[in-house]
Amino acid sequence: MDLKDIGEFGFIKRFANKFDSFLKEEELGIGDDCAVIPINQLDNYVITTDLLNEDIHFLKDKISPKELGYKSLAVNLSDLAAMGAEPKFSFLSIGIPSHISVEYLDAFMTGFYSLSEKYKMPLMGGDTTKSSDKLIINVAVIGQCKKAEMHLRSMAKEGDLICVTGFLGDSAGGLNLILNDLELNPENKYLVQKHHVPEPRIHEGMWLAKQKSVHAMMDISDGISSDLMHILDASGKSAHVHTEKIPISESLRNAAIKNNWNSVELASSGGEDYELLFTVDAIDVDRIKTEFAARFSEKISVIGEIKEGQTGISWFDNGKNITNNKIGFNHFVKG
Amino acid sequence: MDLKDIGEFGFIKRFANKFDSFLKEEELGIGDDCAVIPINQLDNYVITTDLLNEDIHFLKDKISPKELGYKSLAVNLSDLAAMGAEPKFSFLSIGIPSHISVEYLDAFMTGFYSLSEKYKMPLMGGDTTKSSDKLIINVAVIGQCKKAEMHLRSMAKEGDLICVTGFLGDSAGGLNLILNDLELNPENKYLVQKHHVPEPRIHEGMWLAKQKSVHAMMDISDGISSDLMHILDASGKSAHVHTEKIPISESLRNAAIKNNWNSVELASSGGEDYELLFTVDAIDVDRIKTEFAARFSEKISVIGEIKEGQTGISWFDNGKNITNNKIGFNHFVKG
Repeated sequence: MDLKDIGEFGFIKRFANKFDSFLKEEELGIGDDCAVIPINQLDNYVITTDLLNEDIHFLKDKISPKELGYKSLAVNLSDLAAMGAEPKFSFLSIGIPSHISVEYLDAFMTGFYSLSEKYKMPLMGGDTTKSSDKLIINVAVIGQCKKAEMHLRSMAKEGDLICVTGFLGDSAGGLNLILNDLELNPENKYLVQKHHVPEPRIHEGMWLAKQKSVHAMMDISDGISSDLMHILDASGKSAHVHTEKIPISESLRNAAIKNNWNSVELASSGGEDYELLFTVDAIDVDRIKTEFAARFSEKISVIGEIKEGQTGISWFDNGKNITNNKIGFNHFVKG
Repeated sequence: MDLKDIGEFGFIKRFANKFDSFLKEEELGIGDDCAVIPINQLDNYVITTDLLNEDIHFLKDKISPKELGYKSLAVNLSDLAAMGAEPKFSFLSIGIPSHISVEYLDAFMTGFYSLSEKYKMPLMGGDTTKSSDKLIINVAVIGQCKKAEMHLRSMAKEGDLICVTGFLGDSAGGLNLILNDLELNPENKYLVQKHHVPEPRIHEGMWLAKQKSVHAMMDISDGISSDLMHILDASGKSAHVHTEKIPISESLRNAAIKNNWNSVELASSGGEDYELLFTVDAIDVDRIKTEFAARFSEKISVIGEIKEGQTGISWFDNGKNITNNKIGFNHFVKG
C-alpha cells in the first residue's frame, strides 16, 4: 500500500488511538495544534514539533539561511499561538550535509535567535548530526497557557462566526513568485517576505484566548479550506464560507491580476499563512474586532458561520452557492 | 569555514551561551543528557531529542523497520535513563520518501509502540511529512525525576570510582559485522541485536539516581573515551582508566579474535552502547554492585578513578601507562 492512499494524516490517526490508553487525566495527545500536559492546577504546557526538509518545505537556494532559521522557529510558534500559549522553550535538531558551511549555519542560528529573543525563549537542547545530502531541520517548542483559556478545535458552536486574522494567500503568492522566478518589485517582495519570514500571532493568540466568546481556535498552515475542516471534524459541525469576505491584500490582488492567478484559491488553499482561524459567539464579534484592531493594528475578518449538520464546507460567492462549481477551485476539496 | 574544523559540538557550544541568559532559576539548557525544566518544588521534567538520518545513523536495508522504530525511541530513552528519569511522553517527526510503503511504516510503528508500552508512554504528537529521498526520524521524549536525585555530568568528585553497567563494544562489534556483511552465527547475531535493539537502562538509571553515593551519571552513546571526557570537562577533573577492567562480552572477544578486531578499542570508542557511565564514592561501591546485581541481574564494572588535575584521561593496561601509545587506539583521541 502506498502512503498516498491513506495520506499522512490517515497514517497518524491509525496509531493515535493505540497510544491514547496511556494518557492520564487532562493530558491531550495527537489531534490538536499542540499536545497538552498539565503542570499544576491552573496551567498547562503545550508542545508541538515541525520537521522541515530541504526540497520539500524549502528550497535552499531561494531562502536565505537567516530567514530559514527564523521561519523554522516561527512555524512552530504559530502552533503555540493557536493554543493562546506563551512561548517558553525550544529544541533544535539539525541534519547537516557536508557542503553546508559554518557561515551558513551561523546565519541560520542568527535568524533562529532573533525570533527567540522576542520571547526570551531559550534553546534548551537538540541534536546536531550529519546528513547525507539534504539539510534537515526539526524544531520542537513548549509553551504555557491557562487551563481556563484552552480553545481546542473541538469547541466550535452552532451560530459561531468564523474569523481570521490578517490577510490570507500572501505566502502562497510569494511561493508562486519564487517557483516561477518572477521579477521582484516592492509589492512582490512583500509577498515573498510573507512566505519566508512569517510572523507568528503569539500576542494575538494570547489575547484571543482570554476572550470567553472565542470558542475553537487553530493556526492556518494548510489553507482555510483544509484547516477549517479540522475544526468541523473535531466539533461535529458544518460551515458556510463567503469567498468575497476572505481578506486578500492589495499586493496579492495586483500580483494575481498580473500573473493570471486565482487569488481566492490562493487565499483559501494556498497554505503557510500562519494567521489564526477561530470561531466566536456572534454577539461579541464587534467588540472583539474593535479591541483587536486597537491593540494590534491588524484586522479580523468574518468569513462565514458555523452550522449544524454533516461536517463539510458550503462555499458562497456573493450569496451564490459555488460549492460544486470547481472551475478555478481545483484545490478546494483536499484529500 | 567547514563544520569539520569546529565539530558539531563546537557549533552548538558557540550558540548555547547566547541563549543561557533566557534561562530561569533551576532550568538547565544545552550541555547535559537532557534539558531540565522544574515543574514543582520536588520534580523536574527532563527532555531530550535525537535525529536519525538514513545512511548516517542507520542503513535501511540492514535494520528491519520494526527494529528501527524500537531503536529510534530507545536511544532517546537512554538519555532519560542517564538522568534517572521515568519516561513520560514522546513525540515523533518522520520524513518519508515516496518509495516507503505503508507496511514499512506500520512495522516501524509496531517497534516504536512495543517500547512505548513498557513504560505506558503515550506518543503525544509529531510531524509526518514527505522527504525527497532519505528516511528521516526525529524523536523527542520527556521524562520526570526528583530534583533531589539529579546526577549531572558536573558532579564527579576526586576519588570517585568510574563505573559502567553491562558490557561495552557489543554494538560496535555488531555494526562491524553488518558493514562487512559477515556471516551471522548465533554469537554474531547477539552483537547485531545489541546494535539494532539496544535496551535503555531506565530502571537501572532510576535506581542508581536514588543512591546518594552516585555522583555524575550519563549514558554511553559515543564510547567511554569520548563520553567520559564530557564528565571530566563538566566536573573539571581528570581520570585514570584501566583498559583490562573494561567489561567485554565473550561474544565480542570471540568475534574480535576471528575477525582481527581490537576489542578494547571497540569497547572504549565504538559507541552506541547505551549503557550507563557513572562515578561513585569509593566507600559505597561494593554495596551498590551487590544490590544492583541482585536487582537487575546485570553487573557493574569499576573501570577507573576520578583524579584532580587538568581534564584528560590517562589510559593504563595492567598498570602500564599506555596513554601515548596509540598503536591500536587510533580513535582514542577524538576531535
